[in-house]
Amino acid sequence: MATLSDIGVSALINILSAFAFLLAFALLRIQPVNDRVYFPKWYINGERASPRRGGNFVAKFVNLDFKTYLTFLNWMPQALKMSETQLINHAGLDSAVFLRIYTLGLKIFVPIAVVALLILIPVNVSSGTLFFLRKELVVSDIDKLSISNVPPKSIRFFVHIGLEYLFTIWICYMLYKEYDNVATMRLHFLASQRRRAEQFTVAVRNVPQIPGHSIADSLDHFFKTNHPDTYLCHQAVYNANKFASLVRKRDRLQNWLDYNQLKFERNPEKRPTKKIGFLGLWGERVDSIDFYKQQIKEFDKRMELERQKVLKDSKSILPVAFVSFKSRWGAAVCAQTQQSKNPTLWLTDWAPEPRDVYWRNLAIPFVSLTIRKLIISLSVFALVFFYMIPIAFVQSLANLEGLERVAPFLRPVIELKFIKSFLQGFLPGLALKIFLYVLPTILMIMSKIEGHIAVSTLERRASAKYYYFMLVNVFLGSIVTGTAFQQLHSFLHQPPTQIPRTIGVSIPMKATFFITYIMVDGWAGIAGEILRLKPLVIFHLKNMFLVKTERDREMAMDPGSVDYPETLPSLQLYFLLGIVYAVVTPILLPFILVFFAFAYLVYRHQIINVYNPQYESGAAFWPHVHSRIIASLLISQLLLMGLLSTKEAANSTPLLVILPILTLSFHKYCKSRFEPAFRKHPLEEAMAKDLLGRTTEPDINLKAFLADAYLHPIFRSFKEEELVEIRVDKVRVDRHQSYADNAQSRDDISSPSPPHHAYHPTSPPHHSYHQPTTSPPQDIYHHGIPPQYDYNHYGYHYEAESWTSRD
Amino acid sequence: MATLSDIGVSALINILSAFAFLLAFALLRIQPVNDRVYFPKWYINGERASPRRGGNFVAKFVNLDFKTYLTFLNWMPQALKMSETQLINHAGLDSAVFLRIYTLGLKIFVPIAVVALLILIPVNVSSGTLFFLRKELVVSDIDKLSISNVPPKSIRFFVHIGLEYLFTIWICYMLYKEYDNVATMRLHFLASQRRRAEQFTVAVRNVPQIPGHSIADSLDHFFKTNHPDTYLCHQAVYNANKFASLVRKRDRLQNWLDYNQLKFERNPEKRPTKKIGFLGLWGERVDSIDFYKQQIKEFDKRMELERQKVLKDSKSILPVAFVSFKSRWGAAVCAQTQQSKNPTLWLTDWAPEPRDVYWRNLAIPFVSLTIRKLIISLSVFALVFFYMIPIAFVQSLANLEGLERVAPFLRPVIELKFIKSFLQGFLPGLALKIFLYVLPTILMIMSKIEGHIAVSTLERRASAKYYYFMLVNVFLGSIVTGTAFQQLHSFLHQPPTQIPRTIGVSIPMKATFFITYIMVDGWAGIAGEILRLKPLVIFHLKNMFLVKTERDREMAMDPGSVDYPETLPSLQLYFLLGIVYAVVTPILLPFILVFFAFAYLVYRHQIINVYNPQYESGAAFWPHVHSRIIASLLISQLLLMGLLSTKEAANSTPLLVILPILTLSFHKYCKSRFEPAFRKHPLEEAMAKDLLGRTTEPDINLKAFLADAYLHPIFRSFKEEELVEIRVDKVRVDRHQSYADNAQSRDDISSPSPPHHAYHPTSPPHHSYHQPTTSPPQDIYHHGIPPQYDYNHYGYHYEAESWTSRD
Repeated sequence: MATLSDIGVSALINILSAFAFLLAFALLRIQPVNDRVYFPKWYINGERASPRRGGNFVAKFVNLDFKTYLTFLNWMPQALKMSETQLINHAGLDSAVFLRIYTLGLKIFVPIAVVALLILIPVNVSSGTLFFLRKELVVSDIDKLSISNVPPKSIRFFVHIGLEYLFTIWICYMLYKEYDNVATMRLHFLASQRRRAEQFTVAVRNVPQIPGHSIADSLDHFFKTNHPDTYLCHQAVYNANKFASLVRKRDRLQNWLDYNQLKFERNPEKRPTKKIGFLGLWGERVDSIDFYKQQIKEFDKRMELERQKVLKDSKSILPVAFVSFKSRWGAAVCAQTQQSKNPTLWLTDWAPEPRDVYWRNLAIPFVSLTIRKLIISLSVFALVFFYMIPIAFVQSLANLEGLERVAPFLRPVIELKFIKSFLQGFLPGLALKIFLYVLPTILMIMSKIEGHIAVSTLERRASAKYYYFMLVNVFLGSIVTGTAFQQLHSFLHQPPTQIPRTIGVSIPMKATFFITYIMVDGWAGIAGEILRLKPLVIFHLKNMFLVKTERDREMAMDPGSVDYPETLPSLQLYFLLGIVYAVVTPILLPFILVFFAFAYLVYRHQIINVYNPQYESGAAFWPHVHSRIIASLLISQLLLMGLLSTKEAANSTPLLVILPILTLSFHKYCKSRFEPAFRKHPLEEAMAKDLLGRTTEPDINLKAFLADAYLHPIFRSFKEEELVEIRVDKVRVDRHQSYADNAQSRDDISSPSPPHHAYHPTSPPHHSYHQPTTSPPQDIYHHGIPPQYDYNHYGYHYEAESWTSRD
Repeated sequence: MATLSDIGVSALINILSAFAFLLAFALLRIQPVNDRVYFPKWYINGERASPRRGGNFVAKFVNLDFKTYLTFLNWMPQALKMSETQLINHAGLDSAVFLRIYTLGLKIFVPIAVVALLILIPVNVSSGTLFFLRKELVVSDIDKLSISNVPPKSIRFFVHIGLEYLFTIWICYMLYKEYDNVATMRLHFLASQRRRAEQFTVAVRNVPQIPGHSIADSLDHFFKTNHPDTYLCHQAVYNANKFASLVRKRDRLQNWLDYNQLKFERNPEKRPTKKIGFLGLWGERVDSIDFYKQQIKEFDKRMELERQKVLKDSKSILPVAFVSFKSRWGAAVCAQTQQSKNPTLWLTDWAPEPRDVYWRNLAIPFVSLTIRKLIISLSVFALVFFYMIPIAFVQSLANLEGLERVAPFLRPVIELKFIKSFLQGFLPGLALKIFLYVLPTILMIMSKIEGHIAVSTLERRASAKYYYFMLVNVFLGSIVTGTAFQQLHSFLHQPPTQIPRTIGVSIPMKATFFITYIMVDGWAGIAGEILRLKPLVIFHLKNMFLVKTERDREMAMDPGSVDYPETLPSLQLYFLLGIVYAVVTPILLPFILVFFAFAYLVYRHQIINVYNPQYESGAAFWPHVHSRIIASLLISQLLLMGLLSTKEAANSTPLLVILPILTLSFHKYCKSRFEPAFRKHPLEEAMAKDLLGRTTEPDINLKAFLADAYLHPIFRSFKEEELVEIRVDKVRVDRHQSYADNAQSRDDISSPSPPHHAYHPTSPPHHSYHQPTTSPPQDIYHHGIPPQYDYNHYGYHYEAESWTSRD
């Protein structure tokens, strides 16, 4: 076990590496050539068209203004400048509320840390069992400050129990305030949104197929009958998954063509060639440019066929539709009520934002959803508890003998003693590292299989799965020795009352491990986040090989968004650690505080300058955050009970029994008080907005407004005549008008906020970032739709420009 | 352990006592004097006004037609005559579906019994471990037929596992068919109902109190804003609990007055007197008739004051209302949507039937509901697991020494050896017996404290609590020795995998106990049910002491209704026993079959001739029945796994693991497929009925129709002028007209059914029971409302006539 000085060394190393990252970031971000990596959000918002410094050729790539190097930490105060309202306007409510989780962590843990350190450390130290036992036991310095130092049956445990009560009450109070706050923010945000397609639209699944009637007819008939006063129109959903996959493949070919053309331009003597066999390793050698052009032509033909099929074949119309209503009230009513006698038909739910729709899952037949959910929950269980089994199997294969057999030519190298020992230490861990790296992807695929139709829901589900994995394998797995599978086995064969004792008793001993974990994963990891090494490299690679026009460069920058499926669970893990160790080893708390403060700064900077949210769910993740902090409270209470029962504190432990019951009731109360704000849509609100809308825009053509809001994004590439067929209004509307409308409404996530002061990280402060700049950014997107709005529907990013602009 | 012959003796005793009950029933029911006890339903339906036989004076009381004595079992075929459609018209859907539980039991267990007996008994008997061990072990004959007889590690366990699969699939198939059936019946029933107040009405709780505005104003404003097209009116709810309790007390006084007046009439020489002290044991002796008249006068004054208070004091208007809509669609929309931004305000839910409303709970403030639920769930837990503690305490007090101290004059009697030993055997059990007798009442009170506003919900909740109690204390308590508390203790200190083993291994040994239980509780108990001993005695007592007029006699008959809180849990226990023992000791199944068949006959007879349902919930209890049978399946699978694991059947037991998962998925599927039919209200349905209504009754005055449907029933005693104030339409409508309307719509639970053949247990078959007889029964109720409709709102029955007819 580590002593205080060991921890000091570890802290030093981690602080140094964090500083190294920060320094690298500070240097890289002020280079004009990296501007699109570190400030993409401003390009997307349309406030920057090119790196800010003009001047000579070199200055276009390297920052020659040496003064700026001196103030390399100035991003921190800048990140704090923007007010929360501005932040919501700038990056959406999701991002603003995401940052509130960090401030909530600070608000919860700063007072707890002060109280715990001031009260518990003296109580624990002065008890001093461990001081006397020192010679017999290997005891770390950290343990002297923890509850382990209190002798069994001591009356001092009342202090710990009292503080557990105090902390629980404090955390519940803060949680209540925060839930209230977030719910109000959400309602205010939704209320202040201007007219948006999803306010009028309901997603209807499982439309019954009546022989002799088209889906469109039965939809029209059903809603005209049952919502006669409010039904407006519907948008059929076409199964364009195959077409979309063709588009994706064609894009990849187009990238290769671009790459080869650029290569040829730079080196006009030699036309690039390639082998047409597997992976370009063998086969006939052909001219690359001709080859790809030929391939693309073939793809265009296949796509044309597929397009005709989608448009003409009635089977490509899915039994799913987006049904729009004349008023928000009508949509709210339809979304919340049961439509049909048969509860598995005509399932209505609020439609996700158009850009939040995960189109591919709309094609999943509803009947298979139950089975999918069952299979996925079994798989998650297996993944959480048995993931070590396949990895151990792979590890047993991926040893040196295996490597030598596969690649005999490496034998002389491997046989070198130095390299051999290195590989022996490295290879077995490799499988595990690869697994942990791809784990979020696996979990996301699992969530996709479950069949949710919104990207936001997918991310929340993936995040839940990741949390279970972390809870079992990082938290419990570090405390109790053995793999999760062994733990599961031993837990099944232990009495239930024994489990908290087993875990509780080892908690104080693992404090040093978790302190190190916080420093590595929390401190250095977050510093790595701000550096954006991967996007930096990819951007420059693309810039070198693919970028021809300004638009290509626009496409090459990958702002990304907050990676909720990974960050939310790890945040929740930090809450768990803080809450569990608050009364056990309070010395851990300052490390968590540093993490929360630092991560807050980093993410605030990233949200302002980098991330470009793919969707806006209106903080729909908050109920999960809330309930997982409550779960952490319950875990901490159970474990403290187990710990104290091993300390034979029989007279004080029963006092704790009532705490979980109270916590649970608090949770139930919060759930009934606030959760409906995140799940349901009050009619009062909808009616108020309808009335407002009727007075401010009395003669709006809603049908035109909704014309292709919920059109599969792939159809935007279709010819105008074809589109008329599949659009809700079925008549030709002025296309650019409707896009402009759309773009405007999208722009108005923010709308009726007071005229706010301008904010820009470097530009003069009176330059408002909200108005489009003089050169409208729409020009660089095809059809005036920003690319992230257009293509992210598929759940994957288009790495280069889309083919559509090329017909 | 009992041998087969022991069971034979027990069966004989129980069959004999069941026959004794049936014989007594057969003799008593054909006496004209008991006609109102055994055929009250026909009096309430208005098809009988007096016992059917005229003739001389004696024949009015005693049946002199000796031929009828010979056919004393003829009620059985009679009970089967009525078709299910007729039954629904006659007694409502609840009763008809309740009977279907018994037929479901038969449908499930007849094939299972045949298969299990044919396959398992040979398999078990021919194994014969126990035959060889006979000398060492005390083994019953029953065990020879059970799974205990199979030697450990036998390959024969595959037969048991195969049958468990087969039975599970069969039960799931039957459950699915039955759920489908019941859901269709419910939807058909609801669809075929004529216009009823609850179709248009929504119960709104937690109406916010806005200072300066009356509740009525804010209600009107809110619903006019948010449901402008459909809102019609609302009925405020007055807190008349105090007034109702005064009415109740006055009724009791009135009963005493009646009793004394009757006594005086029969014996005019002596005016009855009473002592005015505690319980009439001491104090001044006064004239009873004068005393009660005086008391009633005082009560009338207090009631007048209270009535004024209710009408005038704005505080007596509760923040609860019944809001009515112009269309069923409007009500369906309002009931299913969230109204307000604050999800704890304006809570809407479908209104229960007027006679199903439990008025007293409407006064409970909503905020306390969470706390109430928490407290009650803790209490139920405590009651289930620790109920033995207070009883043991009382038992320790209620011994002979205690009795001698309280009543020293009894000492000479108690000291007699024979009586002493009898009392010593009797007294300790007394506390337990009293507890078990009052348990359903306690559970009902608990459910009432939980704050549900419909009597049907209260009964369902009480039934759930009783089920938990039976499951733990009857089922598990009989299998594992020790009190529930000791079991809980040992289960908490056992590994979870050990629990099914502990229970599983003792299951076969308890088969004889449960066979006896089925015979005592099931066979003889059901036979006792048909005899109706308590209502018989009470009816004759009332007839002797209170009845003066024909109307009094009408009041004195207490038809009761199916006692769901007690019968549903015990039914579910029989399902549990059947399912658990099907593969373990199949010889138990025939006993359960006899129970189901016999209970079906008895309850069918009672439902046709006796019970008068207090409310109609449209089989809302079915999802509970379904899910508890599924729970029984899961329990049986777990216990079989435990049992097999003690038999070291390691190669076959793992095969069972997948079964609970499949069962659970089946349950989830059923839940999503059918449960919404019981909880939600499809708009399609509402719209269809609206359209139908608009064409058939285009000019109905809905406001007048709804005028006082949801008026607290106590207000029906108010003067007409006062009523105008509190009724929804606030204008004078023709009162009798509206009642007639009501009565008609109530009558039409049945409506559009084909003209059916007449049915009457004894009258000639062409006498239709559906048309009112020439002497309308309304005459004998005050205001034309049948008494069960008028007074059962309180959740208690008025034993004698109400005071209202006396002002």
